[in-house]
Amino acid sequence: MKPRLKVLTLAVNDLEKSLAFYRDGMELPTKGIIGQEFEDGAVVFFHMGDDLILALYPAPSLAKDAKISATQTRLGAVSIGHIVKSKEEVDVVMKQAEDAGATITDRPHDRFWGGYSGYFQDPDGHLWEIAWNPQWTVAD
Amino acid sequence: MKPRLKVLTLAVNDLEKSLAFYRDGMELPTKGIIGQEFEDGAVVFFHMGDDLILALYPAPSLAKDAKISATQTRLGAVSIGHIVKSKEEVDVVMKQAEDAGATITDRPHDRFWGGYSGYFQDPDGHLWEIAWNPQWTVAD
Repeated sequence: MKPRLKVLTLAVNDLEKSLAFYRDGMELPTKGIIGQEFEDGAVVFFHMGDDLILALYPAPSLAKDAKISATQTRLGAVSIGHIVKSKEEVDVVMKQAEDAGATITDRPHDRFWGGYSGYFQDPDGHLWEIAWNPQWTVAD
Repeated sequence: MKPRLKVLTLAVNDLEKSLAFYRDGMELPTKGIIGQEFEDGAVVFFHMGDDLILALYPAPSLAKDAKISATQTRLGAVSIGHIVKSKEEVDVVMKQAEDAGATITDRPHDRFWGGYSGYFQDPDGHLWEIAWNPQWTVAD
Protein backbone atom coordinates (compact mmCIF):
# COMPACT_ATOMS: atom_id res chain seq x y z
CA MET A 1 0.00 0.00 0.00
CA LYS A 2 1.31 3.44 -0.94
CA PRO A 3 1.17 6.07 1.80
CA ARG A 4 -1.84 7.87 0.36
CA LEU A 5 -5.35 8.57 1.48
CA LYS A 6 -7.91 10.04 -0.87
CA VAL A 7 -11.36 9.73 0.63
CA LEU A 8 -12.74 9.72 4.14
CA THR A 9 -16.36 8.58 4.12
CA LEU A 10 -18.57 9.30 7.09
CA ALA A 11 -21.62 7.08 7.47
CA VAL A 12 -24.62 9.29 8.26
CA ASN A 13 -28.17 8.63 9.38
CA ASP A 14 -29.80 11.53 7.52
CA LEU A 15 -27.98 12.74 4.42
CA GLU A 16 -29.93 16.03 4.18
CA LYS A 17 -29.32 16.83 7.83
CA SER A 18 -25.61 16.05 7.64
CA LEU A 19 -25.30 18.01 4.39
CA ALA A 20 -26.90 20.99 6.13
CA PHE A 21 -24.49 20.67 9.04
CA TYR A 22 -21.36 20.64 6.89
CA ARG A 23 -22.47 22.90 4.03
CA ASP A 24 -24.61 25.47 5.79
CA GLY A 25 -23.24 25.24 9.30
CA MET A 26 -19.55 24.63 8.68
CA GLU A 27 -19.52 26.40 5.30
CA LEU A 28 -17.69 23.67 3.42
CA PRO A 29 -18.21 24.03 -0.34
CA THR A 30 -20.02 21.19 -2.12
CA LYS A 31 -22.22 20.46 -5.10
CA GLY A 32 -24.66 18.85 -2.65
CA ILE A 33 -26.19 15.44 -3.05
CA ILE A 34 -25.13 13.63 -6.20
CA GLY A 35 -25.51 10.09 -7.48
CA GLN A 36 -29.22 9.86 -6.78
CA GLU A 37 -29.74 8.20 -10.14
CA PHE A 38 -28.20 5.05 -8.64
CA GLU A 39 -29.68 2.85 -5.98
CA ASP A 40 -27.55 3.49 -2.89
CA GLY A 41 -25.70 6.08 -4.95
CA ALA A 42 -26.67 9.27 -3.14
CA VAL A 43 -23.54 10.83 -1.68
CA VAL A 44 -22.07 14.22 -0.81
CA PHE A 45 -18.46 15.17 -1.56
CA PHE A 46 -16.39 17.97 -0.06
CA HIS A 47 -12.94 18.63 -1.53
CA MET A 48 -10.68 19.10 1.49
CA GLY A 49 -7.44 20.32 0.00
CA ASP A 50 -5.59 19.16 -3.06
CA ASP A 51 -6.05 15.47 -2.84
CA LEU A 52 -8.59 14.59 -0.19
CA ILE A 53 -12.33 14.15 -0.32
CA LEU A 54 -14.62 14.05 2.69
CA ALA A 55 -17.74 12.09 1.77
CA LEU A 56 -21.11 11.74 3.49
CA TYR A 57 -22.84 8.46 2.71
CA PRO A 58 -25.99 6.98 4.28
CA ALA A 59 -25.12 4.29 6.80
CA PRO A 60 -27.40 1.69 5.16
CA SER A 61 -25.74 2.33 1.78
CA LEU A 62 -22.25 1.96 3.24
CA ALA A 63 -23.23 -1.18 5.13
CA LYS A 64 -24.61 -2.65 1.90
CA ASP A 65 -21.62 -1.54 -0.17
CA ALA A 66 -19.06 -2.94 2.26
CA LYS A 67 -21.13 -5.99 3.17
CA ILE A 68 -21.06 -5.17 6.85
CA SER A 69 -24.02 -5.19 9.16
CA ALA A 70 -22.92 -3.08 12.09
CA THR A 71 -23.68 0.57 11.50
CA GLN A 72 -24.59 1.67 15.00
CA THR A 73 -21.29 0.40 16.32
CA ARG A 74 -18.01 1.86 15.24
CA LEU A 75 -17.46 -0.83 12.65
CA GLY A 76 -18.29 0.75 9.38
CA ALA A 77 -19.12 4.17 10.75
CA VAL A 78 -16.19 5.50 8.76
CA SER A 79 -14.67 4.20 5.56
CA ILE A 80 -11.16 5.22 4.57
CA GLY A 81 -10.59 5.32 0.84
CA HIS A 82 -7.30 4.31 -0.71
CA ILE A 83 -7.37 4.85 -4.46
CA VAL A 84 -5.02 2.94 -6.74
CA LYS A 85 -4.21 2.98 -10.45
CA SER A 86 -5.67 -0.27 -11.72
CA LYS A 87 -7.90 -3.22 -10.94
CA GLU A 88 -4.79 -5.33 -10.56
CA GLU A 89 -3.47 -2.98 -7.89
CA VAL A 90 -6.76 -3.30 -5.99
CA ASP A 91 -6.26 -7.05 -5.93
CA VAL A 92 -2.64 -6.70 -4.82
CA VAL A 93 -3.43 -4.37 -1.92
CA MET A 94 -6.41 -6.47 -0.80
CA LYS A 95 -4.20 -9.55 -0.82
CA GLN A 96 -1.57 -7.68 1.16
CA ALA A 97 -4.20 -6.67 3.73
CA GLU A 98 -5.48 -10.21 4.02
CA ASP A 99 -1.94 -11.51 4.47
CA ALA A 100 -1.39 -8.84 7.14
CA GLY A 101 -4.35 -10.15 9.11
CA ALA A 102 -7.17 -7.90 7.94
CA THR A 103 -10.73 -9.14 7.75
CA ILE A 104 -11.97 -9.01 4.16
CA THR A 105 -15.61 -7.91 4.26
CA ASP A 106 -16.08 -7.64 0.51
CA ARG A 107 -13.70 -9.09 -2.07
CA PRO A 108 -12.89 -6.83 -5.03
CA HIS A 109 -15.51 -6.61 -7.77
CA ASP A 110 -16.87 -4.14 -10.32
CA ARG A 111 -18.99 -1.36 -8.81
CA PHE A 112 -22.08 0.39 -10.13
CA TRP A 113 -20.18 3.69 -10.32
CA GLY A 114 -17.80 2.33 -12.91
CA GLY A 115 -14.90 1.35 -10.74
CA TYR A 116 -13.61 -1.72 -8.97
CA SER A 117 -13.04 -2.07 -5.26
CA GLY A 118 -12.90 -4.25 -2.18
CA TYR A 119 -13.25 -3.60 1.54
CA PHE A 120 -11.31 -4.82 4.54
CA GLN A 121 -11.28 -4.11 8.26
CA ASP A 122 -8.07 -3.49 10.17
CA PRO A 123 -7.37 -5.10 13.58
CA ASP A 124 -9.65 -2.56 15.29
CA GLY A 125 -12.45 -2.86 12.78
CA HIS A 126 -11.64 0.35 10.90
CA LEU A 127 -13.00 -0.01 7.41
CA TRP A 128 -10.85 0.58 4.33
CA GLU A 129 -12.01 0.61 0.74
CA ILE A 130 -9.29 -0.13 -1.81
CA ALA A 131 -10.55 1.19 -5.11
CA TRP A 132 -9.75 1.88 -8.71
CA ASN A 133 -11.84 4.71 -10.14
CA PRO A 134 -11.38 5.42 -13.87
CA GLN A 135 -12.52 9.01 -13.29
CA TRP A 136 -9.87 9.86 -10.71
CA THR A 137 -6.22 10.42 -11.38
CA VAL A 138 -3.76 9.11 -8.83
CA ALA A 139 -0.40 10.69 -8.12
CA ASP A 140 2.70 8.53 -8.12
CA MET B 1 -14.13 26.02 8.61
CA LYS B 2 -11.73 25.88 5.68
CA PRO B 3 -12.06 22.83 3.43
CA ARG B 4 -8.99 21.11 4.78
CA LEU B 5 -8.27 17.91 6.62
CA LYS B 6 -4.88 17.19 8.09
CA VAL B 7 -5.10 14.24 10.43
CA LEU B 8 -7.21 11.14 10.61
CA THR B 9 -6.77 9.44 13.97
CA LEU B 10 -7.80 5.84 14.41
CA ALA B 11 -8.50 4.71 17.95
CA VAL B 12 -6.79 1.38 18.51
CA ASN B 13 -6.92 -1.23 21.23
CA ASP B 14 -3.29 -2.35 21.00
CA LEU B 15 -0.84 0.20 19.63
CA GLU B 16 1.95 -2.32 18.99
CA LYS B 17 -0.40 -4.65 17.16
CA SER B 18 -1.88 -1.90 15.01
CA LEU B 19 1.59 -0.51 14.30
CA ALA B 20 2.65 -3.96 13.13
CA PHE B 21 -0.39 -4.21 10.88
CA TYR B 22 0.17 -0.88 9.14
CA ARG B 23 3.98 -0.74 9.16
CA ASP B 24 4.95 -4.37 8.63
CA GLY B 25 1.82 -5.68 6.97
CA MET B 26 0.77 -2.75 4.81
CA GLU B 27 4.29 -1.34 4.45
CA LEU B 28 3.43 2.24 5.35
CA PRO B 29 6.54 4.18 6.39
CA THR B 30 6.65 5.51 9.95
CA LYS B 31 9.04 6.39 12.75
CA GLY B 32 7.05 4.05 14.97
CA ILE B 33 5.69 4.91 18.38
CA ILE B 34 6.56 8.42 19.52
CA GLY B 35 5.42 10.61 22.39
CA GLN B 36 5.92 7.98 25.06
CA GLU B 37 7.50 10.58 27.32
CA PHE B 38 4.01 11.97 27.88
CA GLU B 39 1.14 10.35 29.75
CA ASP B 40 -1.35 9.38 27.05
CA GLY B 41 1.15 10.69 24.51
CA ALA B 42 2.12 7.46 22.74
CA VAL B 43 1.04 7.74 19.11
CA VAL B 44 2.04 6.55 15.64
CA PHE B 45 2.05 8.83 12.58
CA PHE B 46 2.03 7.87 8.91
CA HIS B 47 2.45 10.63 6.34
CA MET B 48 -0.16 9.87 3.69
CA GLY B 49 0.68 12.27 0.91
CA ASP B 50 1.61 15.92 1.04
CA ASP B 51 -0.68 17.17 3.70
CA LEU B 52 -2.35 14.29 5.47
CA ILE B 53 -1.37 12.26 8.50
CA LEU B 54 -2.90 8.97 9.52
CA ALA B 55 -2.49 8.52 13.26
CA LEU B 56 -2.91 5.50 15.52
CA TYR B 57 -3.82 6.42 19.08
CA PRO B 58 -4.89 4.14 21.93
CA ALA B 59 -8.65 4.27 22.45
CA PRO B 60 -8.36 5.11 26.17
CA SER B 61 -6.03 8.01 25.35
CA LEU B 62 -8.38 9.38 22.72
CA ALA B 63 -11.38 8.99 25.00
CA LYS B 64 -9.53 10.90 27.72
CA ASP B 65 -8.25 13.57 25.32
CA ALA B 66 -11.67 14.20 23.80
CA LYS B 67 -13.56 13.72 27.04
CA ILE B 68 -15.78 11.03 25.58
CA SER B 69 -16.58 7.73 27.18
CA ALA B 70 -17.73 5.57 24.32
CA THR B 71 -14.81 3.85 22.68
CA GLN B 72 -16.36 0.52 21.81
CA THR B 73 -19.15 2.23 19.91
CA ARG B 74 -18.46 4.29 16.85
CA LEU B 75 -18.41 7.53 18.81
CA GLY B 76 -14.81 8.39 19.16
CA ALA B 77 -13.46 5.48 17.21
CA VAL B 78 -12.09 7.95 14.71
CA SER B 79 -11.06 11.54 15.22
CA ILE B 80 -10.78 13.87 12.24
CA GLY B 81 -8.19 16.58 12.65
CA HIS B 82 -8.69 20.06 11.29
CA ILE B 83 -5.61 22.20 11.88
CA VAL B 84 -5.86 25.99 11.95
CA LYS B 85 -3.39 28.86 12.22
CA SER B 86 -4.01 30.25 15.68
CA LYS B 87 -5.70 29.71 19.02
CA GLU B 88 -8.24 32.33 18.04
CA GLU B 89 -9.15 30.35 14.93
CA VAL B 90 -9.71 27.25 17.07
CA ASP B 91 -12.21 29.21 19.12
CA VAL B 92 -13.91 30.57 16.00
CA VAL B 93 -14.35 27.14 14.38
CA MET B 94 -15.51 25.54 17.63
CA LYS B 95 -18.08 28.31 18.02
CA GLN B 96 -19.19 27.79 14.44
CA ALA B 97 -19.61 24.08 15.08
CA GLU B 98 -21.61 24.71 18.24
CA ASP B 99 -23.83 27.17 16.40
CA ALA B 100 -24.30 24.59 13.64
CA GLY B 101 -25.62 22.09 16.17
CA ALA B 102 -22.51 20.09 17.02
CA THR B 103 -22.03 18.59 20.47
CA ILE B 104 -18.96 20.08 22.13
CA THR B 105 -17.24 17.30 24.03
CA ASP B 106 -14.20 19.31 25.09
CA ARG B 107 -13.95 23.09 24.90
CA PRO B 108 -10.65 24.47 23.57
CA HIS B 109 -7.73 24.53 25.97
CA ASP B 110 -3.94 24.22 25.96
CA ARG B 111 -2.68 20.68 25.36
CA PHE B 112 0.31 18.84 26.76
CA TRP B 113 1.88 18.63 23.31
CA GLY B 114 2.20 22.39 23.10
CA GLY B 115 -0.88 23.22 21.09
CA TYR B 116 -4.45 24.25 21.73
CA SER B 117 -7.54 22.36 20.65
CA GLY B 118 -11.15 21.44 21.23
CA TYR B 119 -13.34 18.54 20.17
CA PHE B 120 -16.88 18.35 18.85
CA GLN B 121 -19.15 15.63 17.49
CA ASP B 122 -21.15 16.10 14.31
CA PRO B 123 -24.84 15.05 14.04
CA ASP B 124 -23.80 11.42 13.64
CA GLY B 125 -21.31 11.44 16.46
CA HIS B 126 -18.21 11.69 14.24
CA LEU B 127 -15.48 13.28 16.29
CA TRP B 128 -13.54 16.33 15.08
CA GLU B 129 -10.57 17.92 16.76
CA ILE B 130 -10.00 21.57 15.87
CA ALA B 131 -6.41 22.31 16.71
CA TRP B 132 -3.62 24.83 16.54
CA ASN B 133 -0.21 23.18 16.55
CA PRO B 134 2.80 25.54 16.64
CA GLN B 135 4.93 22.84 15.01
CA TRP B 136 2.77 22.42 11.93
CA THR B 137 2.46 24.85 9.08
CA VAL B 138 -0.96 25.30 7.54
CA ALA B 139 -1.52 26.19 3.91
CA ASP B 140 -3.83 29.09 3.03
